[in-house]
Amino acid sequence: MSTVLGRNNYGKSGVRLVKVTRRPDRHDICDLTVDVALEGDFAAAHTAGDNTGLLATDTMRNTVYALAQGHDDVGDIERFGIRLVEHLLAAGPTVTRAQVRLAAHPWSRLTSGGAADPHAFQRGNGGDRVATVTGDASGVSIEAGIDGLVVLKTTGSGWEGYHRDDYTSLPETDDRIMATELTARWTYGDPASEIGFTASWEAVRAVVLETFGDHYSPSVQFTLHRMGDAVLEARPEVERISFSLPNRHHLLFDLSRFGLENDHEIFQATEEPYGLIEGTVERAPAPGSAADNGVVSASARSGA
Amino acid sequence: MSTVLGRNNYGKSGVRLVKVTRRPDRHDICDLTVDVALEGDFAAAHTAGDNTGLLATDTMRNTVYALAQGHDDVGDIERFGIRLVEHLLAAGPTVTRAQVRLAAHPWSRLTSGGAADPHAFQRGNGGDRVATVTGDASGVSIEAGIDGLVVLKTTGSGWEGYHRDDYTSLPETDDRIMATELTARWTYGDPASEIGFTASWEAVRAVVLETFGDHYSPSVQFTLHRMGDAVLEARPEVERISFSLPNRHHLLFDLSRFGLENDHEIFQATEEPYGLIEGTVERAPAPGSAADNGVVSASARSGA
Amino acid sequence: MSTVLGRNNYGKSGVRLVKVTRRPDRHDICDLTVDVALEGDFAAAHTAGDNTGLLATDTMRNTVYALAQGHDDVGDIERFGIRLVEHLLAAGPTVTRAQVRLAAHPWSRLTSGGAADPHAFQRGNGGDRVATVTGDASGVSIEAGIDGLVVLKTTGSGWEGYHRDDYTSLPETDDRIMATELTARWTYGDPASEIGFTASWEAVRAVVLETFGDHYSPSVQFTLHRMGDAVLEARPEVERISFSLPNRHHLLFDLSRFGLENDHEIFQATEEPYGLIEGTVERAPAPGSAADNGVVSASARSGA
Amino acid sequence: MSTVLGRNNYGKSGVRLVKVTRRPDRHDICDLTVDVALEGDFAAAHTAGDNTGLLATDTMRNTVYALAQGHDDVGDIERFGIRLVEHLLAAGPTVTRAQVRLAAHPWSRLTSGGAADPHAFQRGNGGDRVATVTGDASGVSIEAGIDGLVVLKTTGSGWEGYHRDDYTSLPETDDRIMATELTARWTYGDPASEIGFTASWEAVRAVVLETFGDHYSPSVQFTLHRMGDAVLEARPEVERISFSLPNRHHLLFDLSRFGLENDHEIFQATEEPYGLIEGTVERAPAPGSAADNGVVSASARSGA
Repeated sequence: MSTVLGRNNYGKSGVRLVKVTRRPDRHDICDLTVDVALEGDFAAAHTAGDNTGLLATDTMRNTVYALAQGHDDVGDIERFGIRLVEHLLAAGPTVTRAQVRLAAHPWSRLTSGGAADPHAFQRGNGGDRVATVTGDASGVSIEAGIDGLVVLKTTGSGWEGYHRDDYTSLPETDDRIMATELTARWTYGDPASEIGFTASWEAVRAVVLETFGDHYSPSVQFTLHRMGDAVLEARPEVERISFSLPNRHHLLFDLSRFGLENDHEIFQATEEPYGLIEGTVERAPAPGSAADNGVVSASARSGA
Repeated sequence: MSTVLGRNNYGKSGVRLVKVTRRPDRHDICDLTVDVALEGDFAAAHTAGDNTGLLATDTMRNTVYALAQGHDDVGDIERFGIRLVEHLLAAGPTVTRAQVRLAAHPWSRLTSGGAADPHAFQRGNGGDRVATVTGDASGVSIEAGIDGLVVLKTTGSGWEGYHRDDYTSLPETDDRIMATELTARWTYGDPASEIGFTASWEAVRAVVLETFGDHYSPSVQFTLHRMGDAVLEARPEVERISFSLPNRHHLLFDLSRFGLENDHEIFQATEEPYGLIEGTVERAPAPGSAADNGVVSASARSGA
Repeated sequence: MSTVLGRNNYGKSGVRLVKVTRRPDRHDICDLTVDVALEGDFAAAHTAGDNTGLLATDTMRNTVYALAQGHDDVGDIERFGIRLVEHLLAAGPTVTRAQVRLAAHPWSRLTSGGAADPHAFQRGNGGDRVATVTGDASGVSIEAGIDGLVVLKTTGSGWEGYHRDDYTSLPETDDRIMATELTARWTYGDPASEIGFTASWEAVRAVVLETFGDHYSPSVQFTLHRMGDAVLEARPEVERISFSLPNRHHLLFDLSRFGLENDHEIFQATEEPYGLIEGTVERAPAPGSAADNGVVSASARSGA
Repeated sequence: MSTVLGRNNYGKSGVRLVKVTRRPDRHDICDLTVDVALEGDFAAAHTAGDNTGLLATDTMRNTVYALAQGHDDVGDIERFGIRLVEHLLAAGPTVTRAQVRLAAHPWSRLTSGGAADPHAFQRGNGGDRVATVTGDASGVSIEAGIDGLVVLKTTGSGWEGYHRDDYTSLPETDDRIMATELTARWTYGDPASEIGFTASWEAVRAVVLETFGDHYSPSVQFTLHRMGDAVLEARPEVERISFSLPNRHHLLFDLSRFGLENDHEIFQATEEPYGLIEGTVERAPAPGSAADNGVVSASARSGA
C-alpha cells in the first residue's frame, strides 16, 4: 500500500491575552483570544518523527505575548494579526502559510462618582470583534467580522407565502418575534495599508444594528440581504459581506385552551431546533466581466 | 428493613418565558427563565404509584405562561414570583411549600435614526436580575440577587502579607488585575408590600459597581465586605447581602526570559483553577440581643 | 450604621489533578477536579485588609498536588479528601472548618492486540464519582455521590392519574421514554474507618442501574424511591440516599397530521423545560424515637 | 451602487430525533442530531420578499421525523442521510443542492439480573458517529466521521528535537501524557451502494483506538499520520482520512520547590491554550498521474 500526506497544519489555539495600556489619566484594556495555525513542509515530522522543522506550539503562545508587548494597539486586531503573521512566516524553518484568528471581547468602562472610572470595567455587549489574517508568499489577506451579536425585534417580522408540501404544518404569520445571534464576516477591496480597521468595524456594526430594525422583514433572508446591501452602500471599502443567522424561534404560547387571549404577548423561547440562514452580498462585477454571474439587485434596498 | 421517605420536592425548571408589552409608542420586553418547585405530602406517589396528589410539571409550565398573560409587569420578578407562589400553594391538593426562582436576562434598546428604536433590542450586559420567592402557611419570603455581573479592574488591587507555609510559592504583589463574575443575594428587612423591588435592584447594582472600583483592594475579601457595607449604608430596606466572587486570575506573563519588560501590561487570562470568595454582610443586631454574635465592624467603610 | 460580617468562606476551585500510578505491568490513572473551601476567623482581612490569617488559595492548589504525591490511592476520593481536610485544618492559622469536594472522571482502558493496553485509555461513561469531605473540631463527615449518570428506558414508564386543574393540558400515557441525568448523594452510618469507599461506591451505582430498569415506573418519584430503597436494602453501611432527577422529556412526535403512524417509535428529545424530581430515602428511626417523623414504607419495594 | 447576492443556503439545525425500534425481545435506540441545509435559487426571497421558492425550515424538521418513521435503520446515518437528501432535492421548488449532517450519540445497554436489559440504556462513550451527505444533480457524496473520541496515554509520548527560536522556552521531554479529543473525517473510494457503512465505521474506530496506543509517539503529527496509514491499510474502501487533534496539555506539576519528587506522576490538566494538529492521509495516486503531487510515504507505518 502507498499513502501520501495530504493537507496539514498545526498551531496553538485559545491563547488568552489581556493587555493593559497604562495611560496617565486612565487604563485601556484589550481582551483577546488568539488562534495560530501554520502550514508548510512538515512531512518529516509526520512520517519519520523528525521534529527539526517544527516550531513548538508553546513557542507560538510565547510569541503572541511577546509581540503584544511591543505592539501599540493590539485591539486593532487586523494590524496585530498582520504583525503576528509576518513574524510567523519567518519563524518556522519550513513555514509557507500562517493564519491567525483573533477575537476581541468587549468591556465597557464603569462610572465612578458620575465620571468615567479610570481603571474599572464591566463585560460589554454587542458582540466580539474578530479577524482572520492569512499570509503566504503572495501576501496577506484579511477577513474582519462580528461574533455573538444577539439581537431581537418584537414585531416587524413575518413568514408568509412559502412553498408547502406534504410535511408542511407551520401556520403563516405577519407578526412574529425575530431573534438571532448574528455572525458576520467581510473583506475589504482596498489595500490593507489604506484601511482604518477600527473605524470600519465600528461603522459596519452600527449599520447592521440600524438596518436590523428599520424595516418589515418578510424573511430572515430578506433582512440578511438588506443588512448586506446597507453595509456595502455605507462603506465603500467593504468588498463583500457574509452573515450566518440562526433563527432563535420564539413560539407564541397557546393560551386559548385555557380561555385566555394571547395577542402576540406571551412567547416560549426555544434553543433547538433552530433555522440557520446564511448568505453573502457582494459588489456587482463590471458589466460583461468574467465574474458577472451573480444575481443583480441594484435597487434592492430602495425597493424594500 | 424499614425505610422512610425523607425531604422531597419536584417541579419544572428552565421555563423560558418572553413577554412583550405592546405600548402605543414602543414595545417592552421581559425575558425570563423560571424554575418552580413544590413540597408537600407526595408519599403516595413515591411508595404506591398513586399520582392523585401530584400536579403535573407540564401544568406548572402552563401556569407560568398563563399567569404571565394577566400580570402587568413580569419583569418585576419578585412580584411575579409572589403571584406564582400564591397560585401554586392553592393549586396542588397536598402542596405545603412552593418555591419559584426567576432570572431576567437583560436586553438593551437599539437606536434607529438617532432615536430609541421602538421594537428592536440587543442583548444587554450587567448581569441577570434574579429572585427566589418561597411561600408556605407562614407567609412568603423573598431573596433578590444578581447573577453573572462580570467586572474587572486593571489596578488598585494587591495580595500581600498573607500566611505562608511549606506549600506557599506565590509571590506577593501590590498591583494586579482583579476580575470576577459576581453573584449577589440579599434579603429585605421591610415587608414585601412596602418595597419597590425594581428600584431597589437597580440601586443595589449601582452601589456594587461604584464600590468595586472606588478603593485599593488588599484582598477580594476586603472588597466583598466593602461592597456589602456600602449597600447596607445606601439602602436601608436591605437586611443582609451575600456575595460569591470567583477570582478569575490574570497571570502576569513572564517576558523577562525573552529580554522583554512586562510592567503590568501583558497578562494571561485563566479559567481554572480559580479562587472562590464568599461572604455575607448584615446589619448588626441591637446590642445585647440574642442575635448579637457577629463580628461588629461599625466603621469598616469609613476606615478603608 | 453598624454592620457585622456574617458567614464567610474562601478557597480554590477547579483544581485539575491527574495522577498516574506507574506499576510494573501497567499504569493506572486518576483524573480529579478538587474544590477546597475554608471557614475560620477571617474578619481582619474583610474589615481591615489584614491578610495575616489567610492561607493563599494558590497555596491550597499546591497542597492538593503535593499531598497527591504522597498519597497511595487518590482515586479513593473519600480517603484522599480526609487527608486534605486534616492537613487544611492545621494549615491556616485561624481555620475552624475545611470542606473538600472531589470529582473523579471515569476513564476506561483501551485494548491492544486483544489484551488490555497498559497505558492507553478512553474517556469512560457511567458518571463521575464525587465526594464532599467536611471537617472541624468535632470530626469529619463524608458525603459520597454520583454525578452525570445519564440513563434512559424506552418503555416501562408512564404518567397517569395525576391531579388536573384549569391549566392542565398534558394527556395521560402508560408508555413513554424516561430519561434522566442522575445525581445521587449518600451518607454512611458506619464510622469512616470501617468503610471500603471504593467498593461501596461501585455497589451503589450497580444497584441504582439495575433498579432503574427493573420495574414499571408510574412516575419519576416512584423510581427515585425504589432506587433509594434498593440501595438501603443492599448496602447496610448506607444511612440515607438522595437523588436529583431531571426529567429529560422525549415528546412523541405528531405524525398523524401527515397520515403516518407513530406507535412509540419517533420522539423529539428536548432540553428545556425539564421536570426536576428530588428526594431522600433513609432508614427508619427506631419506633418511638425522637426522630420518628418520616413516612414509613417498610414494604415499599416488595410491593412495587 | 450595484450589488449581487452571492453564495447562500438555509436550513434547520439541531433536529433532535430519537427512534425506538421495538423488536419482540428487545428495543434498540438511535439518538440523532440532524442539520439540514439547502442551496438553490432563493434570490427572490432575498431581494423582493417573495417566499414562494422557499420550503419552511419547520417543514424540514417535520421531514426528518416523517422519513425516520418509514426508514428501517436510521442509525446507519449515511443511508438515512442519502434518503433525506434525495427527498429534499425534490421537495423545494428551486433546490439545487442539499446537505444533511447527522450525529449519532452512543448509548450502551444496561444489564439486568446478569443479562442484557431489553429496554434500559446508559449514555455510552467512544464518540459520536457522524456523517455529512451532500447531493446535487451530479449525485451524492458522503463523508463519514467520529466526533468527541477522548483518548489519553500516560506514557509512550515525547516532544524533542524541535526548532528553537528567541521565544522558545519549553523543555524537551521523552515522556509525557498525550491526550486529545479526536475528530476524524473520511471518504470512501467505493460507490456508496457497495459500502457497509456501519461495519466500516466500527472498524475505522477500532483501528484508530488500537493504533493510538501501539507506538512511541515523537509528536502528535506522527501519531496522526500513523493512525491514518493504519486505517487506509486495514480498510480498502476508505479513500482518505483527516484528523483534528487538539493537544490537551497535562503539565508536570513542579513539586521540587517543596522538596518533593515528581517522577511523571502528578500532572495539572489544562484546557487553554491547546495545541491543534490537523492533517490528512490519503492513497497515493497512480505514478505519473495528474494527482501525483503529495508526499509519498509508502513505508511510513512499517518504519515506525
